[in-house]
Amino acid sequence: MAEGVRSHPSKVNLAEKFGRFSEHWQQKIVAEVNDFYVKIAKLQGSFEWHRHEQEDELFYLVKGRLVIRLRDRDITLNEGELFVVPKGTEHLPVAEHEAWVMVLESKSAVNTGDAGGERTASPEWI
Amino acid sequence: MAEGVRSHPSKVNLAEKFGRFSEHWQQKIVAEVNDFYVKIAKLQGSFEWHRHEQEDELFYLVKGRLVIRLRDRDITLNEGELFVVPKGTEHLPVAEHEAWVMVLESKSAVNTGDAGGERTASPEWI
Repeated sequence: MAEGVRSHPSKVNLAEKFGRFSEHWQQKIVAEVNDFYVKIAKLQGSFEWHRHEQEDELFYLVKGRLVIRLRDRDITLNEGELFVVPKGTEHLPVAEHEAWVMVLESKSAVNTGDAGGERTASPEWI
Repeated sequence: MAEGVRSHPSKVNLAEKFGRFSEHWQQKIVAEVNDFYVKIAKLQGSFEWHRHEQEDELFYLVKGRLVIRLRDRDITLNEGELFVVPKGTEHLPVAEHEAWVMVLESKSAVNTGDAGGERTASPEWI
């Protein structure tokens, strides 16, 4: 699908894309911008503490509420708000109820960062 | 302001940022993600045909409607929709009524691309 997007790109409707899956913490790629992916995910519950050594990570809240815990404070994101976790910064995303996010980061980023483990997964195009 | 954002980043509320300015076609930087800027702009009327040789350019529609004219077709974006103009592709953004967009592209991109001219302007942090 990546090739198709490249050769004849079409617009992306986020709501339509979110309607295609229900699992949590699985990033889906909806667009690429040079060496960056634009991904979406549904989050519920708590992920795990991790950091990305080289990649800043942008979270944009499409629906619901997300708390991004940092070691020294919490960032609470509501709809229409975004936050960039700077590279090297430990963070823990927590969503009490299901939250829909758009994530922007370099293609080189791994979802679990330095933590690794069973929740490590490559994003797929949707 | 960029330094402040780097040293102690805070969240960004897009509606609040859009409320701070009224001019059209002036990109305002709201975040940086590695070598990318996240910018917002209010668009009304027609820009000019141009292309970016090296940079893909993402448009995300926050409010209103935007037509991105390509040489072979038009892409009409409504709220919650995004489109990536591939590098090297001529495009012309047109907004009949005021449209609010979030733009994502490499820091190296120039707003008027290869066209240059008096509408060329560097984005500023807001």
